Amino acid sequence: MHVSGTSPVTPVTVLGLGAMGSALATAFLDGGRPVTVWNRTPARADALAARGATRADDARQAVTAGELVVLCVLDHTAAYATLGAIGDALKGRTLVHLTNGTPAQAREFAEWATQRGARYVDGGIMAVPPMIGGPGSLVLYSGDRSALEEHRAALELLGAARWLGDDPGLASLYDLALLSGMYGLFAGYLHATALARTEGGSTREFTDELLIPWMTAMMSGFPDWARQIDSGEFGPASSPLAMQATAFVNLIEASTAQGVDPALMIPVQELLNRAVSAGLGDQDSPALATLLSGPGKEPVR
Amino acid sequence: MHVSGTSPVTPVTVLGLGAMGSALATAFLDGGRPVTVWNRTPARADALAARGATRADDARQAVTAGELVVLCVLDHTAAYATLGAIGDALKGRTLVHLTNGTPAQAREFAEWATQRGARYVDGGIMAVPPMIGGPGSLVLYSGDRSALEEHRAALELLGAARWLGDDPGLASLYDLALLSGMYGLFAGYLHATALARTEGGSTREFTDELLIPWMTAMMSGFPDWARQIDSGEFGPASSPLAMQATAFVNLIEASTAQGVDPALMIPVQELLNRAVSAGLGDQDSPALATLLSGPGKEPVR
Ligand SMILES: NC(=O)c1ccc[n+]([C@@H]2O[C@H](COP(=O)([O-])OP(=O)(O)OC[C@H]3O[C@@H](n4cnc5c(N)ncnc54)[C@H](OP(=O)(O)O)[C@@H]3O)[C@@H](O)[C@H]2O)c1
Ligand SMILES: NC(=O)c1ccc[n+]([C@@H]2O[C@H](COP(=O)([O-])OP(=O)(O)OC[C@H]3O[C@@H](n4cnc5c(N)ncnc54)[C@H](OP(=O)(O)O)[C@@H]3O)[C@@H](O)[C@H]2O)c1
Repeated sequence: MHVSGTSPVTPVTVLGLGAMGSALATAFLDGGRPVTVWNRTPARADALAARGATRADDARQAVTAGELVVLCVLDHTAAYATLGAIGDALKGRTLVHLTNGTPAQAREFAEWATQRGARYVDGGIMAVPPMIGGPGSLVLYSGDRSALEEHRAALELLGAARWLGDDPGLASLYDLALLSGMYGLFAGYLHATALARTEGGSTREFTDELLIPWMTAMMSGFPDWARQIDSGEFGPASSPLAMQATAFVNLIEASTAQGVDPALMIPVQELLNRAVSAGLGDQDSPALATLLSGPGKEPVR
Repeated sequence: MHVSGTSPVTPVTVLGLGAMGSALATAFLDGGRPVTVWNRTPARADALAARGATRADDARQAVTAGELVVLCVLDHTAAYATLGAIGDALKGRTLVHLTNGTPAQAREFAEWATQRGARYVDGGIMAVPPMIGGPGSLVLYSGDRSALEEHRAALELLGAARWLGDDPGLASLYDLALLSGMYGLFAGYLHATALARTEGGSTREFTDELLIPWMTAMMSGFPDWARQIDSGEFGPASSPLAMQATAFVNLIEASTAQGVDPALMIPVQELLNRAVSAGLGDQDSPALATLLSGPGKEPVR
């Protein structure tokens, strides 16, 4: 097998073997890297050991075996618990931290790890485990850039690697931003299919034939929304917010009448009503962006 | 110009010339149909008259000029107000009603119109005005099928025409279902871009390079979600809901810390927490569908 990059046989350590950590370790193994694994509950290492991973007895032993240490556990509390008893083992190694967290948590973890001699890269995985190593997988990174570049070949076994900046909090920020986009999409999917199901018929048919083409069409307007938001100049309305607020009453009323909990849609209704009250009734959807937050910072990248 | 269909020169009437009604009338004109228009506020007919539409003095005169009468005003109150003084003018004509409403309102309007001798088709427009007449435009129809088929050639000037069933309420139901999907998507877009903007940078770049590819990737899971929902058998979790609920705390915390109103995301958090409380913590996202509504009706189509 040919492995490209500056350090083709960098030994990799993966700490945390939940759904995601197991997928990460598998991708490193599939890429021909020597992989040492550890998980709080040892049984979760069984399948990986059978595929050729080395099983460490404790986290310290695991960290010592790797040049590149990848940590992916439930949350930052679990991350500190995992590394709490490893002493100075991180010294000189690169820690790539892929546990979900806030920007503030990432910055704090960066300080904690660099104080222990690690080179720290924070990351946000924009993929579900079955996507890891496949063409649609993307991981956002921020923090110690030279450490990232040194291990880029190994890390690209997980998915495309996108650098966001030196501030270790940036990967988390963009990760959470993208997750919020995903959760809006999920909320829309769940409400739409629940409503469609009330008249019978197949959710699969509704999804494939109507919902996905419709959502795809509606998403195609987003680049123009973004242009309007960036410029602060909102163009003439072809879907006036006042009209949308009126139709939304029907959406909530019909949902309730059909026995579908309208909870996921209520804050959208409140936002539309707030827009109308604020005098934006003759504006179009992108103007809603002005109601969600104060002005952004100046670009920092 | 060659115009296909059984009745190539059917005169069409369009009542209501807001953003949408004007787009509909324009598409009929562009398709070579004789078009008569009326709007409560007469000035909104000016541009269409300049393009060749006939301007009626009142709604009754407008209806009398058409074989196919298309009504698209703000809501059902406006629709009754528009047709209130036309006497028996609807008799023998086809009324295609494209005003947004609930299934119950559509059924009531169908009764009202058929009592006055009209053939009634209810519709839901799945397009924004600039899309009307273009390749991505779709209109859902239900009600009097033979009337729809007779005027299919004219109606397809607006967009693809999809028949849903004899029950005039079906078009509204699926329209509102698709709209709820769109509003989830919009909520996700608005929150995601607001959060990304807090660290500066271009909303356009974030939208094009990160958000749209990510949302597109996440949407590709929906057919499989639908399969699971239809079967009632939810597969093994690669993104356990308990893990998602944990990460959601970070999403809300970071949003608040960055000055972004978390309102659009709160009900998603509540749904995830409810799922964990209900013992679904080791399930994956599609299992959330079981929490939104009671069992659907048997298929009626
Ligand atoms: N799955 C996804 O779709 C996905 C996508 C992107 C990012 N992520 C992120 O990846 C991280 C891991 O997610 P996952 O899907 O692998 O979750 P998971 O399947 O629930 O696994 C959780 C992992 O965290 C460990 N853990 C929990 N508490 C711990 C503690 N106190 N001390 C030590 N270890 C502890 C678990 O160990 P035990 O086995 O001993 O319980 C397990 O290895 C999360 O931050 C998640 O947000 C996940
Ligand atoms: N625009 C879209 O993106 C879109 C997409 C799909 C479906 N729709 C649906 O299409 C319908 C029209 O939307 P639109 O975008 O054209 O809205 P709009 O631009 O706000 O126009 C509203 C129309 O309703 C008329 N109207 C309001 N109250 C009335 C009353 N009491 N009596 C008579 N006419 C009255 C207005 O007449 P005046 O000019 O006299 O005020 C105008 O013609 C709505 O049901 C909407 O949900 C719109």
